[in-house]
Amino acid sequence: MELERLIAVAAGHRPADLVLRGGRIVNVFSHEVYEADVAIAGDRIAAVGGPFHAAATVDCRGLILCPGFFDAHVHIESSMLSVPEFARTVVAHGTTAVAADPHEIANVMGAEGIRYILRTSKYAPIHVYVMLSSCVPASRWESAGAELGAVDLLPFLSDPWVLGLAEMMNYPGVVSGDPDVLAKLKVVVDRVIDGHAPGLSGPALQAYAAAGVRSDHECVTADEANERLRAGMRVMIREGSVARNLEALVGLVNPANADQFMFCTDDKHVDDLLREGHIDYVIRRAIRLGMDPLLAIRLATINPARYYGLRRRGAIAPGYQATLVALDDLESIRPRKVWNDGKLVAEDGVCVSDQTAYLAARPIVLRGSINTHWLELSHFAIPAPASDHARVHVIEVVDDQVFTRRRIEPAAVREGQLVADPDRDLVKLAVIERHSASGRVGLGFVSGLGLRRGAVASTVAHDAHNLIVAGVNDADMLAAAVHLIKIRGGLSVVEGGKVLADVSLPIGGLMSDQPAETVSRKLQEVGAAAASLGCPLQRPFMSMSFLSLSVIGSLKLTDQGLSPPRLRRDDTG
Amino acid sequence: MELERLIAVAAGHRPADLVLRGGRIVNVFSHEVYEADVAIAGDRIAAVGGPFHAAATVDCRGLILCPGFFDAHVHIESSMLSVPEFARTVVAHGTTAVAADPHEIANVMGAEGIRYILRTSKYAPIHVYVMLSSCVPASRWESAGAELGAVDLLPFLSDPWVLGLAEMMNYPGVVSGDPDVLAKLKVVVDRVIDGHAPGLSGPALQAYAAAGVRSDHECVTADEANERLRAGMRVMIREGSVARNLEALVGLVNPANADQFMFCTDDKHVDDLLREGHIDYVIRRAIRLGMDPLLAIRLATINPARYYGLRRRGAIAPGYQATLVALDDLESIRPRKVWNDGKLVAEDGVCVSDQTAYLAARPIVLRGSINTHWLELSHFAIPAPASDHARVHVIEVVDDQVFTRRRIEPAAVREGQLVADPDRDLVKLAVIERHSASGRVGLGFVSGLGLRRGAVASTVAHDAHNLIVAGVNDADMLAAAVHLIKIRGGLSVVEGGKVLADVSLPIGGLMSDQPAETVSRKLQEVGAAAASLGCPLQRPFMSMSFLSLSVIGSLKLTDQGLSPPRLRRDDTG
Repeated sequence: MELERLIAVAAGHRPADLVLRGGRIVNVFSHEVYEADVAIAGDRIAAVGGPFHAAATVDCRGLILCPGFFDAHVHIESSMLSVPEFARTVVAHGTTAVAADPHEIANVMGAEGIRYILRTSKYAPIHVYVMLSSCVPASRWESAGAELGAVDLLPFLSDPWVLGLAEMMNYPGVVSGDPDVLAKLKVVVDRVIDGHAPGLSGPALQAYAAAGVRSDHECVTADEANERLRAGMRVMIREGSVARNLEALVGLVNPANADQFMFCTDDKHVDDLLREGHIDYVIRRAIRLGMDPLLAIRLATINPARYYGLRRRGAIAPGYQATLVALDDLESIRPRKVWNDGKLVAEDGVCVSDQTAYLAARPIVLRGSINTHWLELSHFAIPAPASDHARVHVIEVVDDQVFTRRRIEPAAVREGQLVADPDRDLVKLAVIERHSASGRVGLGFVSGLGLRRGAVASTVAHDAHNLIVAGVNDADMLAAAVHLIKIRGGLSVVEGGKVLADVSLPIGGLMSDQPAETVSRKLQEVGAAAASLGCPLQRPFMSMSFLSLSVIGSLKLTDQGLSPPRLRRDDTG
Repeated sequence: MELERLIAVAAGHRPADLVLRGGRIVNVFSHEVYEADVAIAGDRIAAVGGPFHAAATVDCRGLILCPGFFDAHVHIESSMLSVPEFARTVVAHGTTAVAADPHEIANVMGAEGIRYILRTSKYAPIHVYVMLSSCVPASRWESAGAELGAVDLLPFLSDPWVLGLAEMMNYPGVVSGDPDVLAKLKVVVDRVIDGHAPGLSGPALQAYAAAGVRSDHECVTADEANERLRAGMRVMIREGSVARNLEALVGLVNPANADQFMFCTDDKHVDDLLREGHIDYVIRRAIRLGMDPLLAIRLATINPARYYGLRRRGAIAPGYQATLVALDDLESIRPRKVWNDGKLVAEDGVCVSDQTAYLAARPIVLRGSINTHWLELSHFAIPAPASDHARVHVIEVVDDQVFTRRRIEPAAVREGQLVADPDRDLVKLAVIERHSASGRVGLGFVSGLGLRRGAVASTVAHDAHNLIVAGVNDADMLAAAVHLIKIRGGLSVVEGGKVLADVSLPIGGLMSDQPAETVSRKLQEVGAAAASLGCPLQRPFMSMSFLSLSVIGSLKLTDQGLSPPRLRRDDTG
């Protein structure tokens, strides 16, 4: 939008391209709601007030206009959708911007993955800002597909859509002054650095804040949030698919400190996005929990814009981006119309933008990410030790949690091999390195998946996203894994050598190239198939995806073996 | 401060350089006051909480610690002090940062003047940020010493102390889309653009805001301020020597909109700085007018820091600049100790920093700025017209106001010349171009100065700062002007060819190289001398400095003649 025309439209010397007439606007600066027309020129708001001359008019009488919603921290990969498809889904709920951390795809494909996110974002009907993934790989106990040092991140800083450094999960590295970690903080000097420090407190938290980390989305108690607030860190109140912290934190927000808070989803699955919504859901719920609606809207609009230094975002005011949501009222937070860059992009819960169609017609193809050694049955075998009383470490799944428990159980032995024992809910687990065809396979046992037959496999396995397979027999495990290799990654359920259900995730083995509704349906199918094998879990693949997350939990399994590594003793095979 | 040491101190792995112990801190994020120790490493705050180990400790029991104060918009030249001396004066009042617009010296010396401000700022015990003067010259009806276009401003943007474009006074130029004005807005894209738009309203204000102007310090009514607030512009509440808007605006600020407000002084004279104080005075007065003390402190600390995008300023929190003020209490706002960059710089109202002494020993010398044609008596002569009933336009001074009134009076004629008539308070006025020795002299008459004898002269004459002289006879006018040429600019009072008093302002003809106390005393002397000649005004030189400000007032005089120019008719000589 050229400045000359913007000014001329605002001054009334030229007609606006579009006028939103008769609505009541939410003013995030004056903290008011009042009736005003909004004049739009190109992708910007020219003036607020009116009446205005315009080429086109939209009747907004009876509607509340507020700035488009902003998710302050999200891993788009967790939706299992491509960026344009994620955008199509959330824009229908009023989201017009996200600060995305491409941590998952970066762990699979490094800088190539981040570039892919940036490129496909250009075809999304929302603004996708990128925060550079700070912890690739997430730990040295797992084998990721890439390693991103400070110098690998540096070139991205010249991209206008890149805002800073994403959640610095390696808080021990920050506090201890690890040179490689500090190098990453130094290259983003004067940009935003997001935090991730569950439970960090006292001097260590002070050191983390002193290092320049200015937010945290991992607060689960008001005390944690309050300590961060006092230390000058913004609190991102997270309400995702699993981690839901709004209820615990909502009482902390008041008019005098509200500018320190934002909303984010972090990880939200496609089915939850379709069913509940996105940031609109968080606002709605915050209001129901007692938050002033105007404060709630500020947490979702101007606050993240200011935090990220985006001077033209998050408000309905002259010169700001023409990015607005029309709501029925300030209770239901139901988006009736959504405009981005001055164009109508969603209406009555449906995306009406043709930007994603453009990409569908001219796809940006990413290379395949599944690169395993040739797999054979022998990869899954665990020879039994000589002792008659062998015992094994068992990872115990805790439903809907990232962490796990650890048990020691007598081993089940058959023909000189340690095997699964479904009667005791003891299932074999394998993590197959899938990035460099090393042939490395970590083997162990898991309880809590409840499988009585067959096998389940996934290429979504935090944070290195190797190929994880759980099963009661090696043949089905092999078949489930091989099927994923064939479909370029995804989820599979196998019984008796037959694929019962699958979800293809060809983008990094993490994201689908299909519409949200299709992905959601396919996810229900694999869930039902896993249940048919005996699995009692609500989200079996999500639970499985955390079994290799080596940084959290009492016992995990990676391609390098059990983690923490001190547990890799002979009696585990 | 290297990041490694900062983190180590915060984490408690190394001792702090300095600990402020036992004070109660003002937390601008959580909007609280509570007891906490502050650990400082180098020029940064490492941690807040404690107890901390430290090389040195300051007992702050009984004191309130808050972030150093920030003047959001000031012309340092108006104090008539050099930058280090201004800094020495205001730091004693708790000011540790200013956003300075070097508009006056830029009108005299252009880019050279701005560079001089930036260079001398390095020796100030406060942080002097510079906003680039947007209107040099201020109008085409006066002859400034320089012209600054967009390309002249551009190189300054690479200086880390330069934050953006200073008050865009040419709001008609913005609203009408003047290409030269828009070019200046375009070169500072994504930086801060300050406004100055007294009385602007409606579509024109929308256009001004749409152009990217994000503040205004010219609000004198709550309505004006409210319109700017709604348009997304920050309101800088001004409380200077003459313009005092706090009382009119204070009621507008509440916890939900407070982040849109700041404090500034704009123009404050040395005597007022010494007597009243600086931003401490504004905070104190705001509290007395009913503002919540914590909000008032936020307006003076974190709010301008955030507005200007200074991520490490304006708060007592880990990683922030170690820039603090210790107050007796939250009513008197009396600064007892002031630290800047981790060093004690003022104590009990006295600057204790040696940084200004460093500059005094190694002065940065600016070339002389008084460059007039050789002056003779004939320059002051106004031949009377042939008519027996000649009449003259007379500028009428309004005490303590920038604007003037316009009168038409019968001329006093002697020996074929138009002359002063003290009995009717009719005094001759001359504005002598002093930048390019053009020999251009504008002549006219003024009433309200009350001179009965002699002449007064000044090189401070907004905005071109030509040499202005008022007097009852040409000989004294010549003598007063010549004296200023000899002393490289300043203020002078002459009677019977003899200099009664003067103030030397060798820096651009605007600023003294002497200590504040000396300048203040000398100003009292010239004031008393002017009074001895009959002048009844409180601030005669300030009133005279506005007589050539061509953009405001019914009648002004510049080196080019009367302004507005349509009044330059024969009957004025």
